Amino acid sequence: MTKSMEKPRAKKRSKLTESRDLGCSYARFGPDQPLKLDCGQDLSPLQVAYQTYGTLNEDKSNAVMVCHALTGDQFVANTHPITGKDGWWGLMVGPGRPVDTDRFFVICANVLGGCLGTTGPSSIDPDTGKPYGLTLPVITVSDMVRSQVMLLDHLEIPKLLCVTGGSMGGMQVLEWVAKYPDRVASAIPIATAAKHSAQNIAFHEVGRQAILADPEWHGGDYTVAGTSPSKGLAVARMAAHITYLSETALHLKFGRNLQDRDSLTFGFDADFQIESYLRYQGSTFVDRFDANAYLYLTRAMDYFDLAADYGGTLAAAFRGIQTRVCVISFTSDWLFPTSENREIVRALNAVAANVSFVEIETDKGHDSFLLDVPELFATVTGFLNSAAVQHGLKG
Amino acid sequence: MTKSMEKPRAKKRSKLTESRDLGCSYARFGPDQPLKLDCGQDLSPLQVAYQTYGTLNEDKSNAVMVCHALTGDQFVANTHPITGKDGWWGLMVGPGRPVDTDRFFVICANVLGGCLGTTGPSSIDPDTGKPYGLTLPVITVSDMVRSQVMLLDHLEIPKLLCVTGGSMGGMQVLEWVAKYPDRVASAIPIATAAKHSAQNIAFHEVGRQAILADPEWHGGDYTVAGTSPSKGLAVARMAAHITYLSETALHLKFGRNLQDRDSLTFGFDADFQIESYLRYQGSTFVDRFDANAYLYLTRAMDYFDLAADYGGTLAAAFRGIQTRVCVISFTSDWLFPTSENREIVRALNAVAANVSFVEIETDKGHDSFLLDVPELFATVTGFLNSAAVQHGLKG
Repeated sequence: MTKSMEKPRAKKRSKLTESRDLGCSYARFGPDQPLKLDCGQDLSPLQVAYQTYGTLNEDKSNAVMVCHALTGDQFVANTHPITGKDGWWGLMVGPGRPVDTDRFFVICANVLGGCLGTTGPSSIDPDTGKPYGLTLPVITVSDMVRSQVMLLDHLEIPKLLCVTGGSMGGMQVLEWVAKYPDRVASAIPIATAAKHSAQNIAFHEVGRQAILADPEWHGGDYTVAGTSPSKGLAVARMAAHITYLSETALHLKFGRNLQDRDSLTFGFDADFQIESYLRYQGSTFVDRFDANAYLYLTRAMDYFDLAADYGGTLAAAFRGIQTRVCVISFTSDWLFPTSENREIVRALNAVAANVSFVEIETDKGHDSFLLDVPELFATVTGFLNSAAVQHGLKG
Repeated sequence: MTKSMEKPRAKKRSKLTESRDLGCSYARFGPDQPLKLDCGQDLSPLQVAYQTYGTLNEDKSNAVMVCHALTGDQFVANTHPITGKDGWWGLMVGPGRPVDTDRFFVICANVLGGCLGTTGPSSIDPDTGKPYGLTLPVITVSDMVRSQVMLLDHLEIPKLLCVTGGSMGGMQVLEWVAKYPDRVASAIPIATAAKHSAQNIAFHEVGRQAILADPEWHGGDYTVAGTSPSKGLAVARMAAHITYLSETALHLKFGRNLQDRDSLTFGFDADFQIESYLRYQGSTFVDRFDANAYLYLTRAMDYFDLAADYGGTLAAAFRGIQTRVCVISFTSDWLFPTSENREIVRALNAVAANVSFVEIETDKGHDSFLLDVPELFATVTGFLNSAAVQHGLKG
């Protein structure tokens, strides 16, 4: 695919009205604007649910796109409408934060294939009047970004100051940089990889099989059947959650501590705190996430292999880009280890791109990008300020 | 618990006859010989299924006990009666092998709580005439070894030349050394730990929850219900199997290779070889393993914390032992990393025990102890020969 083959659309607002529902905004694209998917099919209609923070300046030079991870959503920095909890990146995005919403206009869209307002497997298929379920075409990270480009056109923003995100969010960032470099002045991919590893595919497959093994999944038609594959989804979440942490973090946080008891019970209750914690993670996740969306999004991550779109050479993906890139990894991240982040850096260096790389020492594992890691905030603050100056944004 | 509080029983054979069934031997212990469990209950009757290789010499000085891992069994070096596959440690045990059955008399018992002949949750509870299911008391690694001591008494062998095993087998080895040092001349714990880590407990808990989530599990009474929680058990196996390998091994063996296809299918079939491999591992496992046994044995591993029996000080577990110990770990094992094996070495050194330590460089992960790793074989050969000489065994 050639760079920027999807040019900014004509600067007119979609005729489809936006509505409020989850407390966020929606962009709707009708039959005249189908989303061309990697699988070859057109997806239409398309709805993209998104949240914004701050104000777009006059010359539209202060827009920052945040791409969320597998189980994230557009509620970056405000109260989640379902859980009532704070936004997942409130430490990073907000007034006075590294991505300062007093200065930047922040956009985050729920990803394509997700379950919080953007078209996904739980959306109604207009042809049947029922949820798509598994009849929704399999989508890719590239498709996700394509829908975000449509949103950017809809918002009439020609170029982003920055695009950033961690994990699956980082994959979207790489996709933006490779396919739409003219629309991104700078990028911060965090704790990610240019392709999903065999081990990561393996963990995803376990999660998917846990969902598929749940008889309440009903071939994906659980909504119609009036059931919920929550047990399978909870197991999937539990397996994945372990990979988001580090062994050291688990040891320090839980070790072999017992949960509300003084001694082993010689039974199968959650004797250990780590068991209780995991069960809680599983049980709360199912309240805010859709099992089919979990299948689609894990599949999208597994399919991600940026170099494959460029003849197998990752550097070719970045040839000629002017985007400034800052790659960030964490020492204790074993899901997206530094070595995989370094591959991105090497590829960018190979084409003499403007790239900096920061490996942050922390024992918090992959989830570090979501946590209170001062060096992460300092890095983003510094890079973003520099990028803003370069981009012509005033003080 | 004081050392060797369970002395060798009087040298008479159990009156209970042995029978042949799976092609192995059985020792049966009646109401006069209950097994005292850590949970406080007595287990009776008790059956221990075991396999032997080679011949016990006249002075009974050439006996080597092999302790199997979580999903292992007594079929160390002969054809498995269910799968028809070679024994799981045929590379290590056999004529001319490191544990040379032309020279040594090798014993391996199916563990207590297992599912291949030794009393476990699928055994018939004589009080009800039905399988125990979850009414079997929770057992511990200590209980497993206690049943092995009963077997040793039954075989009228006063002292083992060596006890060895990897993973959960290594936990049993440590238990033997700590609690019955007078009955073990030497020991080779491999790829193990003196206590199960939070991360390992976490992975086990995922597996257990996958089984419990399967409606065919029926509260553990699936045999009576005529069902089989094979889907849940398969998911548990898949999750665990990832942890037995290394990221490098997965990368080298599978990478992102596709399974019998030239391109992605944009579906949820096993596009990638790693997916197909994992599904195969799950589906074959359920043919030879029992879901409740999986619950009991993972629980036993989670409960394992040798130091806890000695006031929290691991070194105290080994005070005064004369047993020679060789601890072996593998560089790419992230389930029982070198650091945890080193803790055992440190504790043995702290009481001036005769200990050697070998960390073997390999990218094969935790499963290295089961695989063709020449340095492992050389280490075991050398140590065992030396221990045999020390033990007075002739050439």
